[in-house]
Order: sequence, then C-alpha cells, then structure tokens
Amino acid sequence: MNQQLTEEKVFKDPVHKYIYVQDQTIWDLINTKEFQRLRRIRQLGTSYLTFHGAEHSRFSHSLGVYEITRKIISQFERNEYPGWPQEERLLALCAALLHDVGHGPFSHSLEQVFDTHHEQWTCAILLEDTEVNRVLRRVSKDFPDKVASVIGKTYPNPIVVSLISSQMDADRMDYLLRDAYFTGVNYGNFDLERILRVLRPVQGKIVVKESGMHAIEHYLMSRYQMYWQIYFHPVTRSSEIILRQITRRAKELYDNGYSFAWMPGPINKLLDGTIAVQDYLKLDEAYMQTIFSLWTEEQDSLLAELCDRFLNRRLYKYITLDDPGDSLLEEAAGQFIAIGLNPDYHMEIDFPFDQPYDIYRPDAKKGGKEEKAPILLLNEDNGLSEISVKSDIVRSISGLHQGQYHIYYPVEPLLAAADQLSPGVRELFKI
Amino acid sequence: MNQQLTEEKVFKDPVHKYIYVQDQTIWDLINTKEFQRLRRIRQLGTSYLTFHGAEHSRFSHSLGVYEITRKIISQFERNEYPGWPQEERLLALCAALLHDVGHGPFSHSLEQVFDTHHEQWTCAILLEDTEVNRVLRRVSKDFPDKVASVIGKTYPNPIVVSLISSQMDADRMDYLLRDAYFTGVNYGNFDLERILRVLRPVQGKIVVKESGMHAIEHYLMSRYQMYWQIYFHPVTRSSEIILRQITRRAKELYDNGYSFAWMPGPINKLLDGTIAVQDYLKLDEAYMQTIFSLWTEEQDSLLAELCDRFLNRRLYKYITLDDPGDSLLEEAAGQFIAIGLNPDYHMEIDFPFDQPYDIYRPDAKKGGKEEKAPILLLNEDNGLSEISVKSDIVRSISGLHQGQYHIYYPVEPLLAAADQLSPGVRELFKI
Amino acid sequence: MNQQLTEEKVFKDPVHKYIYVQDQTIWDLINTKEFQRLRRIRQLGTSYLTFHGAEHSRFSHSLGVYEITRKIISQFERNEYPGWPQEERLLALCAALLHDVGHGPFSHSLEQVFDTHHEQWTCAILLEDTEVNRVLRRVSKDFPDKVASVIGKTYPNPIVVSLISSQMDADRMDYLLRDAYFTGVNYGNFDLERILRVLRPVQGKIVVKESGMHAIEHYLMSRYQMYWQIYFHPVTRSSEIILRQITRRAKELYDNGYSFAWMPGPINKLLDGTIAVQDYLKLDEAYMQTIFSLWTEEQDSLLAELCDRFLNRRLYKYITLDDPGDSLLEEAAGQFIAIGLNPDYHMEIDFPFDQPYDIYRPDAKKGGKEEKAPILLLNEDNGLSEISVKSDIVRSISGLHQGQYHIYYPVEPLLAAADQLSPGVRELFKI
Amino acid sequence: MNQQLTEEKVFKDPVHKYIYVQDQTIWDLINTKEFQRLRRIRQLGTSYLTFHGAEHSRFSHSLGVYEITRKIISQFERNEYPGWPQEERLLALCAALLHDVGHGPFSHSLEQVFDTHHEQWTCAILLEDTEVNRVLRRVSKDFPDKVASVIGKTYPNPIVVSLISSQMDADRMDYLLRDAYFTGVNYGNFDLERILRVLRPVQGKIVVKESGMHAIEHYLMSRYQMYWQIYFHPVTRSSEIILRQITRRAKELYDNGYSFAWMPGPINKLLDGTIAVQDYLKLDEAYMQTIFSLWTEEQDSLLAELCDRFLNRRLYKYITLDDPGDSLLEEAAGQFIAIGLNPDYHMEIDFPFDQPYDIYRPDAKKGGKEEKAPILLLNEDNGLSEISVKSDIVRSISGLHQGQYHIYYPVEPLLAAADQLSPGVRELFKI
Repeated sequence: MNQQLTEEKVFKDPVHKYIYVQDQTIWDLINTKEFQRLRRIRQLGTSYLTFHGAEHSRFSHSLGVYEITRKIISQFERNEYPGWPQEERLLALCAALLHDVGHGPFSHSLEQVFDTHHEQWTCAILLEDTEVNRVLRRVSKDFPDKVASVIGKTYPNPIVVSLISSQMDADRMDYLLRDAYFTGVNYGNFDLERILRVLRPVQGKIVVKESGMHAIEHYLMSRYQMYWQIYFHPVTRSSEIILRQITRRAKELYDNGYSFAWMPGPINKLLDGTIAVQDYLKLDEAYMQTIFSLWTEEQDSLLAELCDRFLNRRLYKYITLDDPGDSLLEEAAGQFIAIGLNPDYHMEIDFPFDQPYDIYRPDAKKGGKEEKAPILLLNEDNGLSEISVKSDIVRSISGLHQGQYHIYYPVEPLLAAADQLSPGVRELFKI
Repeated sequence: MNQQLTEEKVFKDPVHKYIYVQDQTIWDLINTKEFQRLRRIRQLGTSYLTFHGAEHSRFSHSLGVYEITRKIISQFERNEYPGWPQEERLLALCAALLHDVGHGPFSHSLEQVFDTHHEQWTCAILLEDTEVNRVLRRVSKDFPDKVASVIGKTYPNPIVVSLISSQMDADRMDYLLRDAYFTGVNYGNFDLERILRVLRPVQGKIVVKESGMHAIEHYLMSRYQMYWQIYFHPVTRSSEIILRQITRRAKELYDNGYSFAWMPGPINKLLDGTIAVQDYLKLDEAYMQTIFSLWTEEQDSLLAELCDRFLNRRLYKYITLDDPGDSLLEEAAGQFIAIGLNPDYHMEIDFPFDQPYDIYRPDAKKGGKEEKAPILLLNEDNGLSEISVKSDIVRSISGLHQGQYHIYYPVEPLLAAADQLSPGVRELFKI
Repeated sequence: MNQQLTEEKVFKDPVHKYIYVQDQTIWDLINTKEFQRLRRIRQLGTSYLTFHGAEHSRFSHSLGVYEITRKIISQFERNEYPGWPQEERLLALCAALLHDVGHGPFSHSLEQVFDTHHEQWTCAILLEDTEVNRVLRRVSKDFPDKVASVIGKTYPNPIVVSLISSQMDADRMDYLLRDAYFTGVNYGNFDLERILRVLRPVQGKIVVKESGMHAIEHYLMSRYQMYWQIYFHPVTRSSEIILRQITRRAKELYDNGYSFAWMPGPINKLLDGTIAVQDYLKLDEAYMQTIFSLWTEEQDSLLAELCDRFLNRRLYKYITLDDPGDSLLEEAAGQFIAIGLNPDYHMEIDFPFDQPYDIYRPDAKKGGKEEKAPILLLNEDNGLSEISVKSDIVRSISGLHQGQYHIYYPVEPLLAAADQLSPGVRELFKI
Repeated sequence: MNQQLTEEKVFKDPVHKYIYVQDQTIWDLINTKEFQRLRRIRQLGTSYLTFHGAEHSRFSHSLGVYEITRKIISQFERNEYPGWPQEERLLALCAALLHDVGHGPFSHSLEQVFDTHHEQWTCAILLEDTEVNRVLRRVSKDFPDKVASVIGKTYPNPIVVSLISSQMDADRMDYLLRDAYFTGVNYGNFDLERILRVLRPVQGKIVVKESGMHAIEHYLMSRYQMYWQIYFHPVTRSSEIILRQITRRAKELYDNGYSFAWMPGPINKLLDGTIAVQDYLKLDEAYMQTIFSLWTEEQDSLLAELCDRFLNRRLYKYITLDDPGDSLLEEAAGQFIAIGLNPDYHMEIDFPFDQPYDIYRPDAKKGGKEEKAPILLLNEDNGLSEISVKSDIVRSISGLHQGQYHIYYPVEPLLAAADQLSPGVRELFKI
C-alpha cells in the first residue's frame, strides 16, 4: 500500500527550484541503496572533461524526471481531462523515478564493449532481490512487473508509456534543462512551464494544443543545439574513445590470459559475462576510476597509458575528414606501426552521426530501437497533425545532419617521431 | 619563462560564463595531473547528501578563483592604479589557481582525525617533485617558493596576499556564488561586477570605494545566509560526523592491531603517519568511496555499519539542546550501553558554532589562525574606515551567533529497543 | 454571477512567467477602461529617472498581486486547510487585482499637495458609475461593497484582508520582485515559491510554518535593501521634490488668481477641490507630462523652470547634514534670497526616514495608519511566535534606521553667483 | 574637445548589468533634452498591449546600443587589432548612442501615414540648433556631420558604419536581448559575451571567427523566434492598425476641412507638412496619448471610436485567410456597409510578411532599403565565407517565411447585427 506523507517532503533543485514528494512509496524508493547509488554515476558521462560544470549525477536527473512527470499528471488531474487514467498516477511516478536505475558507470561508452544493457539491469533491479523491489512489492505483488513494463514500453496503457518515453517525454525535458544548467550554456533554456500547460492526454497519447506550437519549436531547436554543441562535442568523444579503449584492452588481455596485478571480483565477472545484480551494483564511477588509477601501474603499457590518459585528461587530438577511406590513412597506418603505435588503438575513426542520435525525426522508421512517438498537435477542431507538417522551422531542422568523420590519435608519439613520417601524413595530422 | 598564448583559451563556466586563459604557465598548470585530480574532490564535501546539486568539484572552484583574480588585476592594470605592482600579476594568478591544490578527500571532515593539513600538502605539491613544480620552475627557479609564500601568507608584498586571503578575497567571492549556483539557492547572489569595479589597491591593501558600500553589505548578508543555511546545515553535519567516525574507527582498529581484509598502501601510510606526496595524491574521493564500499564487508561491525550509513545515506538523526551537560544525557548514555550501543559513536555532541566560522568579524583577535584583514572603505577624502563603523547592517550581523547544541544518534536501534529506554530518554530522542 | 472561463487565459509576465486567469469576472475587470488606465501610471513614480529600467506600470504590478493571491489560495484549496474560507476566493482575487486602481499619476508625490488619497479614489471607482462597478455588480448586488471593504480593511473576515494587506501580503511580495527585476538589481530576489509553500491560514491570520523561517529572513533582508537602495535613493527623491514643487507652485499661483495660459478642466477641478471620478480618471501620467510640457512656456518663471527641470531631468543636487538646524543654513537662506533664489523652493530639507517607511517593525504602534499585522511563525506544537523573537537577523535589522538630512538645491544659479556667497556657504554646497 | 571623465559614471541596466560612461561628450549627450525625450517613447511601440512588460523606452535601448559598441571597441583596442581605426572610437560611440534620437511616437505605425522618416529627424537633431548639436560641435566643427554620416551609412570608413548597421550590429544585439528581457520570453537569450569575443575587424568589415559559428547560429535562431512570436504578434498588429487608422482618419478630416475641437499646433503642422524640429520634439508618446484622450470626445464618431479603442484596448479581432482575393470578402464588404460599417476602416487586410522584415537573408538584393552586410566567418586560413554556406541551420531558416493574410475587424458591431449577415459571412468572421 502506498500512502500520502503527512507532510510533503521537499528537495532543493537548481533546475526545478523544488522537487516535491507526497507519497510514502516515492520517499522510500529514493532512500533505497540502489537509488542512492545513482549519486555516484554522472549524468553526462565524460562530458565534465569538456564542460567542467557537468559533474551532476543521474540521481539529480532522476528526481527531475519524476518532478516533471508529477507536474504533468497533477495538471491532468486538476483539469480532470478524461483522457488521463487517474489510477495510474503512482505507477507513472515510480517508472519516471526509476527509469535510469540500471545505468552503470559511463554507460554510453562501456555498454558496447561489455555487451551489457542498462535497460536489462533496470529490469533486474526492479524484479530481483533488492531494496527497490521490496518497496515496490509493498504497493502490490505485481507492482514491480508493472513498473518494469512501463519502462520497457510494453505496458498495455500507452499513455503511461508515453509520459516516460516519447519525443516530448519527461526524460528529455529534464535532461536538456539540467545539462544546459550545469554546463552553463544557454541553448537548452526552453519554456517548460508553457509546454506543461499545453499538453493534453488524447487517444492514448500525450499531444500538444496547437496554440503551444511555438514553445515546441523552441524546445526542438534547443535539442538540436544541445546535441551538436554539447553531446557530440569532439573533445567529449575523445574521452569516450579512450574509455572504450581501456575496456576493450582489458577484455583483450583478459581473454588472452594476461595476469592482472589488480583484478577485483566484480570486474572479473563482468569480463567473463557472469556478473549478477549485487556485483553490478558495486560498479559505480568512483569504483571504475579507482580501478583505472590502479591500472596505471599495470605491466601492459597500453592499458597503463590509456588509464593515465583518462585520469589525467591527456586526450587524443582529432582531425576532420570527408571520407574515411582516404588512401593517406592507409599510408599513415603503416607509418604508425613503424614507429611503435597500434592503429587499432591509436587511429580511431569516429562518425558521431552513425550513433542513434536524437534529433527530432517525424519519419523514424517503425520498429527501430530508437523509434519514438512523434509530436502531435491538437487542432482547434480536435484533429491531430504531426508537428513538422505545420511548422516550417521543425521541418527544416529535422532533415539536417552533418557528415564529417573524425580521426582521433595521440599527438605526443607523432611529434616525437615526426621525422619518420611522410610529409603527407605530417600535414594530415598537423605535426 | 611565461609567455602569452597566441590565442586566448576559454572554459565555459556556469558562474562566470567564461574563464579566460592568456598565459602559457596557467594553461600548463591546469593540465598537470595534480590539478586535474581536483576534479575528483568535491568543493562542498558531503553537502551533496543534503543539496543534491552540490556535486561540483574543487577543479571548477579553483578556475573560478583564478578568474576573479584575473578580473581584479586586469581592472587595476587598465586603470593604472599606482598601488598595484604590475610585475606580480603572474604570481598572483598562479597562487589563486593553486591555493586549494593540496586538498584531500572530504578535507574538512578528515583532517582532524588524521592530523593532516591541506595547507602543508599544497606546499609539498608546489615544492616537491611534481608536474606543478616543473611548470612553476620554468618561470624562474624561485617561483615555486614565491607562490607557496603567497598562499602561506608570508610573501613580503601584502597586497598580493590580500587578493587570495582576506575578508573579500577571490576565494570567498567565488565559493559563495558557485555554491549558491550548484545548490540552487538564491541567497548567495551578490553583485560581483559592482564589487570588482569598486576595489582599489591602496597602501598594500585592497580596499573598497565608499560608494560601493551597499554592494559589500549585500555580499556580507549573502555570506551570513550561506553559512547558516548551507554550510552549517544539520543534515550535512550529520554526514560529516559519520565520515569522521569512519576514520576514527579505522584508526582505532589500526592502532589496536586489527587485521583489515582490505587495507591499501596509501591508507596504511596515512594511518601510520608516513604518507608522502605521491601516495597522498592518489587519495581522491573516488578512492575513499571505493574503500568505504569494500569496508562495508569488514568484520568489525561498527566500521562496516558506518561505511554502509555513509554510502547509502542512512544518516544519524539529531536533537537540539541548550545545554550539553544535561543530566538526561548521562542517563541516556547508560541506557545506550545497555542496548548494545557505543555512546562514543552513537551519541555525538556537535556545536557548529565552535568551529572556526567565517561570518564577518571586524574584531577578529590578532594572531588567531582565522584572522583575516577586515574590510576597509576608502572615503572621498582618501581616508579608510572599517566597514562596520559605517554600516548599520554589517554591525548588526557581525555580532550575531546562535547557540544550540545538537546530539546526533542512530534512530533505528533506539526504535528497535524502545521498551528498554526510560520515558525521559524516549521523549528526548523522539522515540 | 461569476463563471469559469472555458479556456484559461494567459498573460506572459517577466516576474511570474505567466499569469493565469480562470474566471470571467477577473477577465472582464482587466478589460475595463479603469483598469487599462493603470498602463499609463508607473509603478515606481519617478524612479525611472534614477534606474532607467523602472518604466513598468501599475497594470503589470496589479496583475502580479492578483497572481500571487491566486497561487496562495490555490495552495490552500489544494490542501483543504480548514482555516481558509473557500467561498471567499473570488472576493480575495478581485480585491487583489483592484487594490491600486485608484492610484493617480505620481501618487506618492502629488497626493500630499492636493490632499487627495488613492484609497478614496479606489473606493469611488468600485462604488460609483464605472465599468469596474458594473462588472462587480454582475457577481452580486453587494459585491462592490465587499471588495471595497476588503481593500479598506474593514471586511469582517480578517484572513481575506490579511492576504492583501499585512507584513507578508501579495502586494509587497510582488512589488519587491518586480521592482528588482525592472531596475535590474539583485537584492529583491527572495524565494517566492518557498514562501508560498509555507503559508498557512490559522485563526483568521496567514502565518508561516517555522521551517520556512529562513525564507522569511531572506525576504525581510531583501525588503531592507530595496528600501535603502531603490525606494529612498536620493536622486529619486530629488525628482519627487521637484514634482511636488511643481504642484505646490501651481496651487499657489491658482490660489493667488494667476491666469494660466493652459489650464485644462480636470486640473482646474483638482486645484479647487471639486474633481469627481470621471475627471480624475483622465489624470494619468501621460496627461501630467503633457501639461508640464505646456507649462514650460508659462509666464511664471518658477513654474516654467520646475517643469523644464522635471521633463529634461535637470534635478537638484543635494548635500547631507546631521542637523537641519545648522546655523549655516540660515546664513545660506539669506544669501539665496540675495541672489534671487527662493529658499522655499530652492533649499528643500528632506528627511526620508520621517516618511511612513516600511521596514519590518514587530512593534508598530496600534492604530497607526501604517500598522500591519506582524509576521507570525507556526511552531511544531501549533503555537504562534512573532518572528523577531526567533530570528536574530530580523531582530537586528528591524531596529535599524539611519538619520541624516538631505538639503536639495539647484546647483546652476549657485555656480553662476558663486562670488556673492560666503566661503562657508560655498563649502557647504560644494561650489 | 572630448575628455575623459575623472570618474567613470555608471547606469544600472537590467540587460547589461551596468552601462559605463567614460567620456565627457557621452555624458553630456545623455543629459541633453533631446536624448532625455527618448524616455517618453517606447522601444516596442504598442507591443505593451500584448506583452505588458514591454513598457521600456528607446532611452534604455539607446544606452544599450552604446554599451555594446563600447565593449566591442574596447575589445578591439585591448587586442590592438590592426583592422580597427582607434581614432574613430568617439565617433562610433556617439553614432551608437544617437542612432535612434529622431524617433517619434509610435514611429513604425505613424511614419507611413504622415510620410515622415525618423532617419531624417535624427539628421535634423544632429545638425540643427539643438542641445545635441552644441555638445557635438564642442568636439570639432565637423563632428555633427560625421556622426550623421555614420548613421546615414555614408561615412567613408565602412567599419564604423558596420558597427551600427549590419546583420550583427550593436542595435540588433541590444534590442533582441532587451525585448526578450522586458516581455519575459526566453527566446532572445543568446550568448552576447561569446559573440563579442569572436568579432574581428577585417578589411573594413566586422567578421566572426569561425570557432564562434555556433553562437551566431543561436543568435539568428533567437532573431527568427523573436520576429515571429513578438514583433509580428497579431494582437500587436491589431493595435498598430488602429493607431494607423486614427492618424489616417485625422488626416482625412483635416484635408476635408473638418473643424477639430482640439488641434494643437504641432499636430496641425504635422498634418500640413510644415513641422520643424522644435515642434517635432514635443511629439512624444505621452503627448499623443493625451491627444487621443481628448479626441475621444470629438464629434466625428469614427475618430472618437478609434481613439477609445486604442486607449482602452478594445482591439480588432482577426481571421486568417490564405487568399485575400476571397470572393466572400467582397460579399462581406457589402454587408458591412449595409450595417453602417466602413470597410476602409473596419475590414483591414494585413500581410505582415510584406513588411521589410528582418530575418537573416544572405542574398538581400543589392540597393534595397533593408540591405544589410551579410555575416562573414573568418576561417583559420584567414579566408571569409558567408555564414549560410557553412551552417546548415542558418541556410534552413534563412529561406523560411509563412504566408497567410489576416483580416482585422471590430467584432462588437458584427455581433450586434448578426442577423443581417449571411451565414457564410457569419462563419468567416466567427459570429
């Protein structure tokens, strides 16, 4: 059973001013060790190495997503919109609060290498023997499953899913505002209050009154700018590449039977694919940084060097290319080997636009992993139109993308061996 | 030799908008591993457990102190004030940037127990074999010593010292603004631009044109509010107490020959007092949190419990008393022992106002550790007056202090054994 | 009959982001000509001559007071506090919106001279034949009287009065935030959202939960600073003095039968004390400025000069004195006459602190015009305490006042006739 | 001769925090009656009837343009860029301050009808017998002409002109920030500090370092949104239409020999085209509003009604049409006449996009009135490229425009005579 707190609890929050907790269940979830662990996982991964203010955690973001969801629902309830199922309130709030609880350290960089998915871990934390699970079960026996199905987008009532996961969901709205606040840029500063006022629950979807179209345009422009200027920043990608290389190298060594001077149990299990939830929960960013710090003294010089680069921010430089098949690159690879470098690690090609990116696309192909419900406007005659039909500006930015490749490389060894490089390679790498 | 960068470097900063670097020496210092390590030490210690936004690091604060110092000096130079020695510019900037470089993890809480002082470590990092030292020595052989003497307040030119350390120094101005921004409160929001415009270098001191008095009043009121509402917040103090108890317990166990399941070298050396600078530099907050996480599995149940409390934010509650000599406390201590608690740990008396606090005091007694040059106003006739002589509001707040004691205790064991406590003790601890 | 609007109306507001209108009556009141007239009356009188941003009108302030009142009531209703009489909602909102509707041009300066009171005009606008009256009567026959009695503080239900008029009323909260925003200072920036959350209707009063004490301290400090730095700014007072002198001179001339080249009907009636509401409503600040502009060509050179000074911002300078009985002043008065000045106009003594000022005073003597209900804290045991009993900082600022006199004078004629002034007088007036 | 002030003067400004005056000439210009008059002319004309915060004047905007220009020049001087002619500093500052000094009341609406141009009046105020002219002549005999030629874009040194008038000039940068601040929207909030840092004087142009491209994109997107959501807001256009109709009607009556009950000299001269500068200067917005107020009692009922509509904000409603040639409109016109309306006034077709609008257009056709120098990026190799070549987002918004017509009409008489309108006309006008 959930019950109302006799006295509302309040968190001071720089983005929403205050976050209000009115339910015992929400309060108890926040106090679980699994949720408190999110304080040790940064919201923006390695972005703090580019924007030093971006040191905020997934803990504060998760509270923010909860708060926006709470505000939307409370507006729906106050206006008694028939499209909103009032009995789903607590379910939606729990899903909002917990949607990121399975994130591991530097998830976006490390999941690829370890072939692990935070969505699965979220599910495990909700359903296995954890404090979170115990709190949810107190509401009802099937409540953990319901929360998991909302987060997993299989819950039968689509409007609940769409609060947490759509082109205008509480997750996106919080992270754009929060990341803008902590990095200090003013791109992300759209008009949240206005947007919350124009949302309407209609036919199992959350749609936008047409009179609010300009506020949505502003939100999508903010998103566009945040992606290109913060999330895809090439210096941040350089640090992500080094992070991925650390784990790639560790896995390679492990698979080859290398004997690590320091190899703690949870990492071992992560590498051999046997890790279970209690060990996974130990893996926060403090833990990973401490391991990297110990690995700077490993015998494998590549691993040691990569860890040193990450901790002390000796990042790779990059050059920009239109075509990654450039024959000069092949020539360079040969010369890299000749001077003792390993092109697998020391010449990494990056094409950020390959990534499942998140610019608004009305025509996201069905079934794709990143498919999100498009933004619909509610016209005066109660019809619905996809926003890019009505808005010139949305139409014009939703088709945009930029198409250059970056090659990341360590500049120091190239400088040291400059005389062994051909003029073309020197010019390419600005040596 | 320092030299100008051919192209100014810029850091995006949420507090000052941008931080500008124009000197090669400053750029090189920021890129040392000792300075980068400040990214892993939070500016406000455990305050993030009360104000979740307060996750910012000493890295960003150090850049901020540098930037304010740069702005003050650049204003002095632009106006060609005779009181400012232009040849001291780089020295002042380096001291501003590095003044906190010796801070260890959770310094304010841990220094007391380990009897170590961040000022000494700062000195060691400047003068011993470090990357910072190498960069400074490139300016001149005695430059590391000069920077250390500015930070240590023994540099013969007092105006350089007063930029970094006085009642209106760049350090205080940055942390009030920064801590207000990241916690999200609006108390700390004084008018920095106005203050910078009214500072004047006069007779070896940095003084304030009288026409700027109101801006200073506002700054001091902000400081007053930040102290009582952020820095001395009782929940934050609860987490500091637990942190101190962890280290106190670890030291106790170590001194008694307890065999730790996990005792890494640097901690061992810290405990036996033989730690040197290279090991000290490994001790960041990621490292300490990882150790605490491992110690939650130690055999000593008190240590394990304290570490669990800290990591998972199971903090002590507190009650408020006018008189810590209350006889009921003695009675309670007996009952605590009877139910298996240890009053040395489970009943901690805290009087925050004993701490060397930092409210403005014009009459700070000479020679005290915390003595800071008072704030002087420059009158129209070029005379100087201490601000509290002129300002009613400063006079009225500078004498204020509040005088209550807090008793911190774990509430769960008291609840579990409530029937073994006397009614008076139950009432006192709100059981 | 009032009724809900089918669709909430929204005003964009820089201070509250949005102002929400949900009642037909409120919407109709805003659209009356008497309320629209407030767009032509500035909120801060002549302050725009000191702080050029302060050009905002009583229209925007009145909407702001309405919005804060709406938020307080909606919080009371949402929590179903028994102390709040829900049937009084519309009455309180109308009183909040209309509390300033009787303000004339530059009221604070001109009321003294014309012996007119905006409170009486507000009453007349509510009760006589106006659009406002017609809208109110549509609610019920006695509704105009009820609104008037709330504004006049005689309404029998004291909690409704206290929303509009107390030490923490919606009026003060809006004007501090608004005036800070438009002048551009950051003193006035207290935490409105927090304060709104801790208000409680108890025993016919609106009180503050003790846990919100710090937010109230901050509000009172903001108020203190706004008074001394904005509202009592000596340059603003100089312009107010000139404005008062214009009307004093006009009245003097009128009483002496002077024949004005331009004397429009409403002003004539104002001067002979026969003005009625329809003429009063024509007197906005555009009207007064146009008259002053015409009067710059009047034959009476004193009136013409004063009007020129006001329009073109040739303000009086001022000097500061501890004692207005200074014998040098008498000497100066003689010399002023000798060089053709009129000490009645050209040597005006001002003691701002004589004014009914508005710093928080817990002990305001009963029955005084400016008496306002003090701020009460609601303790955990449901007792009430006056805030200065609990708060050191409030106690310390509530007793403060500064005690200097200012003498305002035109500097140009003194400079022109400097050689006819004694050295003492020259020194006094900085000639 | 200009000279430095011994003590810098400071204005508090909400947009730039402070405005700094260092030159006697600038100080004297601000204190002229012609410049003070700008306090009585609103920056955004009638927009305050839509956005009630938009009550700010051209006085504050003019100071803002001056301040941005001062900051740009001071950055150029500090970096000693060879492309900036340091001897032009005072000239550029005076032109920035005075560029709008000739604006009359509600210029954008009234100039069309009276066939007068604020540029010509600016010229007259600089060159004829005014206080401004006297201050400028003190610098040098030809200084007024030089200032006039910078404002008129004929000054031979193009870089000085481009500071005041180009796609990125100080004028645009100030008004976007200022209008956003006072209306309270957050669209206009681009990163001024960043832009100022990346401007470079090159080849007689002010260009932008390529690394600052994103800041420019943000500025252009802000501009786009401000135009469509603030400047072209249909309610604001409704009030402009009424204003134009007032003056159109007055001129019509005047030309037909109508005898006005109240027709002051300056208006008379304006109508017969003989107005000279001293009378023009009397025409501020206070003056016009007072005349409109008097004209509400004119015998001509159309003029009286229009004045009443304007003062009391009884604006016309509007409908949206794709094609203004719609045959239903012709039918409606006939019915309007039948019920006593005048289609010339009561059915006004508006196509805002016909207006010389100000969205960024790289290909502005040469010689057009609104032609502005495009924005050029300075590449790393010192080449220049027009920004839309490099930026997808700029290219996509620079071609955008929306194409609907609005028909403005008074709704009250249509409602009153609804039964005399055909069903089609009723539906069209939503009766």
